[in-house]
Amino acid sequence: MPTPNTETTRRYRRACDYLSAAMIYLRDNVLLREQLREEHLKPRPLGHWGTCPGINFVYSGLNGLVRRRRQRTLLVTGPGHGAPAIHANLWLEGTHTELDPTMSLTDLIRGFSWPGGFPSHLSPEVPGVIHEGGELGYALATAFGAAFDDPDLLVACIVGDGEAETGPTAGSWHANKFLDPVTCGAVLPVLHLNGAKISSPTVYASMSDEELVAYFHGAGWSPYVVDVADTADPDALLAETFDLAHSEISAIQRRWRCGEGEGRPIWPMVLLRSPKGWGLPTEYGGGTFHAHQVPLDADQLTELEAWLRSYRPEELFHEDGRPHDDLREVLPAEELRLGRVPQANGGQLRQDLPLPELEKFAVEVPEPGRATASATGTTGEWLAELMRATEQRRDFRVMCPDELESNKLDAILEATGRAFSWPLTEYSEHMSRDGRVLEVLSEHLCQGWLQGYLLTGRHGLFPCYEAFASIVDGMVNQYAKFLKMAGEVPWREPVASLNYLLSSEGWRQEHNGYSHQGPGFLNNLLTKKSSVSRIYLPPDANSLLVTMRHCLASTDRINLVVAGKNPGPQWLDLAEAQRHCRAGVGTWEWAGTETDSDADVVLACAGGIPTVETVAAAWLLRRHAPGLRVRVVNVVDLLTLSTPDGHPHGMDSEEFAECFGTDVPVVFAFHGYPSAVHEVLHGRPEPSRFHVHGYLEEGTTTTPFDLLVSNRMSRYDLAADAVRRTPGWSSRGGGIVQELIGKRDELRDYAYREGKDSEEITDWEWSA
Amino acid sequence: MPTPNTETTRRYRRACDYLSAAMIYLRDNVLLREQLREEHLKPRPLGHWGTCPGINFVYSGLNGLVRRRRQRTLLVTGPGHGAPAIHANLWLEGTHTELDPTMSLTDLIRGFSWPGGFPSHLSPEVPGVIHEGGELGYALATAFGAAFDDPDLLVACIVGDGEAETGPTAGSWHANKFLDPVTCGAVLPVLHLNGAKISSPTVYASMSDEELVAYFHGAGWSPYVVDVADTADPDALLAETFDLAHSEISAIQRRWRCGEGEGRPIWPMVLLRSPKGWGLPTEYGGGTFHAHQVPLDADQLTELEAWLRSYRPEELFHEDGRPHDDLREVLPAEELRLGRVPQANGGQLRQDLPLPELEKFAVEVPEPGRATASATGTTGEWLAELMRATEQRRDFRVMCPDELESNKLDAILEATGRAFSWPLTEYSEHMSRDGRVLEVLSEHLCQGWLQGYLLTGRHGLFPCYEAFASIVDGMVNQYAKFLKMAGEVPWREPVASLNYLLSSEGWRQEHNGYSHQGPGFLNNLLTKKSSVSRIYLPPDANSLLVTMRHCLASTDRINLVVAGKNPGPQWLDLAEAQRHCRAGVGTWEWAGTETDSDADVVLACAGGIPTVETVAAAWLLRRHAPGLRVRVVNVVDLLTLSTPDGHPHGMDSEEFAECFGTDVPVVFAFHGYPSAVHEVLHGRPEPSRFHVHGYLEEGTTTTPFDLLVSNRMSRYDLAADAVRRTPGWSSRGGGIVQELIGKRDELRDYAYREGKDSEEITDWEWSA
Repeated sequence: MPTPNTETTRRYRRACDYLSAAMIYLRDNVLLREQLREEHLKPRPLGHWGTCPGINFVYSGLNGLVRRRRQRTLLVTGPGHGAPAIHANLWLEGTHTELDPTMSLTDLIRGFSWPGGFPSHLSPEVPGVIHEGGELGYALATAFGAAFDDPDLLVACIVGDGEAETGPTAGSWHANKFLDPVTCGAVLPVLHLNGAKISSPTVYASMSDEELVAYFHGAGWSPYVVDVADTADPDALLAETFDLAHSEISAIQRRWRCGEGEGRPIWPMVLLRSPKGWGLPTEYGGGTFHAHQVPLDADQLTELEAWLRSYRPEELFHEDGRPHDDLREVLPAEELRLGRVPQANGGQLRQDLPLPELEKFAVEVPEPGRATASATGTTGEWLAELMRATEQRRDFRVMCPDELESNKLDAILEATGRAFSWPLTEYSEHMSRDGRVLEVLSEHLCQGWLQGYLLTGRHGLFPCYEAFASIVDGMVNQYAKFLKMAGEVPWREPVASLNYLLSSEGWRQEHNGYSHQGPGFLNNLLTKKSSVSRIYLPPDANSLLVTMRHCLASTDRINLVVAGKNPGPQWLDLAEAQRHCRAGVGTWEWAGTETDSDADVVLACAGGIPTVETVAAAWLLRRHAPGLRVRVVNVVDLLTLSTPDGHPHGMDSEEFAECFGTDVPVVFAFHGYPSAVHEVLHGRPEPSRFHVHGYLEEGTTTTPFDLLVSNRMSRYDLAADAVRRTPGWSSRGGGIVQELIGKRDELRDYAYREGKDSEEITDWEWSA
Repeated sequence: MPTPNTETTRRYRRACDYLSAAMIYLRDNVLLREQLREEHLKPRPLGHWGTCPGINFVYSGLNGLVRRRRQRTLLVTGPGHGAPAIHANLWLEGTHTELDPTMSLTDLIRGFSWPGGFPSHLSPEVPGVIHEGGELGYALATAFGAAFDDPDLLVACIVGDGEAETGPTAGSWHANKFLDPVTCGAVLPVLHLNGAKISSPTVYASMSDEELVAYFHGAGWSPYVVDVADTADPDALLAETFDLAHSEISAIQRRWRCGEGEGRPIWPMVLLRSPKGWGLPTEYGGGTFHAHQVPLDADQLTELEAWLRSYRPEELFHEDGRPHDDLREVLPAEELRLGRVPQANGGQLRQDLPLPELEKFAVEVPEPGRATASATGTTGEWLAELMRATEQRRDFRVMCPDELESNKLDAILEATGRAFSWPLTEYSEHMSRDGRVLEVLSEHLCQGWLQGYLLTGRHGLFPCYEAFASIVDGMVNQYAKFLKMAGEVPWREPVASLNYLLSSEGWRQEHNGYSHQGPGFLNNLLTKKSSVSRIYLPPDANSLLVTMRHCLASTDRINLVVAGKNPGPQWLDLAEAQRHCRAGVGTWEWAGTETDSDADVVLACAGGIPTVETVAAAWLLRRHAPGLRVRVVNVVDLLTLSTPDGHPHGMDSEEFAECFGTDVPVVFAFHGYPSAVHEVLHGRPEPSRFHVHGYLEEGTTTTPFDLLVSNRMSRYDLAADAVRRTPGWSSRGGGIVQELIGKRDELRDYAYREGKDSEEITDWEWSA
């Protein structure tokens, strides 16, 4: 049943294919009004042809669907190297010229992959785009993230058969089980099987239709096969398929939304087989991997011209680059064009969160050390309140691979459930189809979901076991790039920040061991642009509250917050926490022994456990080394240590000297790898006076104290190091050091003997 | 059809389950010969009960299979937190006491999760183990890696239903398409569906049997369902299933090995449904997520004793902890016991590679800069020769996500094919079922495969686009931990190093752009133990040859090698490259202008592109700033910069001063993020005299020169910085700086105008 305008659709697609090829090759004579000459070619033809015709096919098919059904649709394109195809469509639908009325077709074609022009891949500079697709694997998860809590939206997602081989994509097919047909939109995946990667065949294209259908059926999808080789009219077949799929989607939504949904909502998807580089003559590699990038060399001028002219651009475009009027007939209404979907510029839709006041949730701290609380537990109560406050708006979610309960954030589950749409075992707890907690044992899925959710204008939090956040290092790298570039695009509005709450840190891995110790996610974030990355290590419950509130109010950042979940001593009341977090760093006079005169040594700390050990070390020094003037400095915002030209949060040299002096030794107890502190201190004078203690990759299943000792970060190690490093004390302090280390070893022996830490450690209480 | 000894198997399993529970709780009275009292309990009961009974079920089922079929079997256990189960089996089969005859049952039970004892997770300290399973997702890929090129081996692999949710596991099911039934062993996956993670249900357990069977059938497997609730005799059902599966495996192998294989080899797998914490009474959470860790608290002493006594340990063990004799009947022959499979201590099997001599492959370099070659291209030829030299041994493989051709290593494909066992499209090239190149667009699969391959005694190389190596940061973190711990286990023999060859670096991303620029994998490796990590940045083809040969001969390391693929100038002939790489760092006198007297400024460099820019900068300075005494230092081995106590490769302070002086400015052109150099310089005196240029996260699709300028690393930027930083020149050098920067900007304008770099950049040739 061909649609009425299949011929025009074919012409439209021919125009797109032509423009895509032209972008790769031409700098001039872009419509071939003259014979093609060498000087019309780019000196470095760059780009990827192979995937473009398939993307054009899907894009034009979606245009038809949107036009016929008036269905607001966001397209997430996995093969981001198919950017020419998207640009071609944006030109034809008029989005490019709407955003930049001065842009000519020559500007676009020449500007593609040209210095100062459009990159070769999709990127934030391209309208309609929320996913770059350079590092492959995350398109489908991102699409689901965009669909959550947006019930009227359809998110179409092209997944290349190369990308399909990645683990994250393979895992993402099960995201259907987390999508509520009532409160969420729909995702329509198109698995594009063109058979080849750069130079080798793909796994999924080697599977038979029967295998593919079984596989996706098993994963809970209803797959439609569209093989362009099987039909004389591929456009009609695709139109028909999209219409069927859309009808299925609408039926599911209707059924569930009027309360008649039962069992599993089985959503449609499309398996599209088309030749790689479809439209390129086979003698130049069409249909094979040879079509992947730039199929014809610049010296094959005659062949290139013949190929380009085979699209007959003169029948499609006016001399000024405007498409013939009939090509507009196949487009959706202006406001529904794929390049203009507001969700793709989510900052436009973002509303500030109704962040609850902190007072009600803050821990009472009559004096430092005189209260005990779990940092994440306290923040969990506040987040639960935020969850309640957004119940109607539904624009805040928590994605979590390692389960909220384990991270002591389970209060949130009193405010909302864990989303799940598949049948449940009878003993499941806290589950609900429309819950706004997403728990899946896949950091990749969590990250992809959150990216899609944030970029479409919503808010979220990603609590994670610290050691396993590195699983998404690659994704964070790409997202940091997206944010950096988006910040340079004038029409992109700020989106809510990506917030990590890393808990279950390595220093307190009771049931686990060495594999669960790894603070390196922080190091990776340090490599990102300073305009994007923020790193906070609040030392107690109230400072975590303040930090979390700050992060959830911020935009366009990646905020990394590291905080403990185990009950621990509290140092700051809410007002002090607010002051301390605003400064990012500060002296804790009550913990040190300094007088008006200068300190002999600074004990600095960053992170919950290191702070406890540092305060305890100062307390030990007061007993073991009376007369040693000790200053205790706590760092919440790690990047205050950076120089001001290294990071916008960097302290100026006076502030830095106020905290750390200019020539005294600093014994620094750091939550993570010492190298992170070494790195941010670069550019400070005399960095070698900083003696950083941190995680040294020593560890196993043992007691907390033994783990600290193994990494030379126990209170005894810190105190001994302070004595050792302080001029004057280093010589006469030998006895003190011996005393401290002797005590440490005695306590360690106790742990080995008794299988637990001595009460001297566990029940120690700070007092002045 | 129950096997004859199903009752004994049940008793054996009861003994395992008892020991597993005992390990979590008991420090004494481990066989409950007395009434259970508080002092018999560990003060901190740690561990995970939930997964243990299922692992014991599979282990004892495998014992039966191995016994009946005499099938050498390696077990890869994904749920590494089920370590008590493995320990229990190792005790019963006598492996523990074989390795340590002094070990008593009390030692084992008390030592589990006890300071100084066995960790709570599987780890290298545990016999039979090649996979820790702390960070979940990689068991199945590791199992395939172990099976490659070991035709007589069966690798059984338990995949938990939590782990199954991860992307890497989801992607690993397709590894069957890369396994050659002729030259490789078989993998028998057991997907263990116990329904729950820490506190929420699992995705796979929510799928119906029909969905699961369709899903795995579609992925090319032949799944058997074993549901322990469906049978009165689960052990008999499992035995029967394993026998059937093994018969299928043998049939496939026979058919293919006698040349009668056709179509797809469809291997069997097992879908095992059993209750979480199977055996724990339901009133204490048995069958629910509450059984995940330590189900009963220490204060439930009576209930705990009742539960433990339900296993009737007195019927299973003698007073000294030896199991009753009948329990040995269900074990395989001594040499086939799962804990003793030689492949699990692969270093025992490892043979040095027959590394080809380099002479034949080296590039002729008559004088520095007077030859052009591709570094990876040259090494590719050498690797091809190595591939040929190992054709019979089959103990060397190349795993590559981004395809050898793109990394200019395609010569290897002349020596062997890409492995693939599924039907191919007609236009595929260089494919063969028994090829030893594995190409799949999944860094996770490549990494997992390689880990399994190396740990079972073989050798390999992982070439990867540099930017996308970060995808496996998490896996590398875990593998570095494995190597570190394995090095501390006396009976573990050294395994071949894990070698990365990162190419297609960000500085030369022609068809790609910003997303493909990312040198951060190096930063992550810097956080690993210095006993494990090595980082090399050979500057040209011959130095890459020398480096690669060194890495492939080394053991127990993670070697990161970064090298370019594009043709570039060559600096060192083979003999010089050998000298230079041996030292790791050295002055290139021919490139500088220093005389006998000291240099005014040092231009240092590490990495191929930075080296070209640095040599060019020195050349520019000779013209623009005559009289400025410049020393050029090239760093191959990044960790020579570290202090000797920071890294074993660290130079002592004299060597360091010989290269970098003690007080002159150093302008350092670095391949990666500047922070990596800042970090390794920590502890060197006056690090602030090092001015590091590197990747600043500025980039897009542009010309190579423009990309360098954007990151302030062009030859002009380096030369100008040298003038600016040199005392005496900083004031009078203003004109020179202006001249250099002016020229830089002129050349950049050229690139923007012409779409390519000026010949002044591309055809520049170094000459003295």
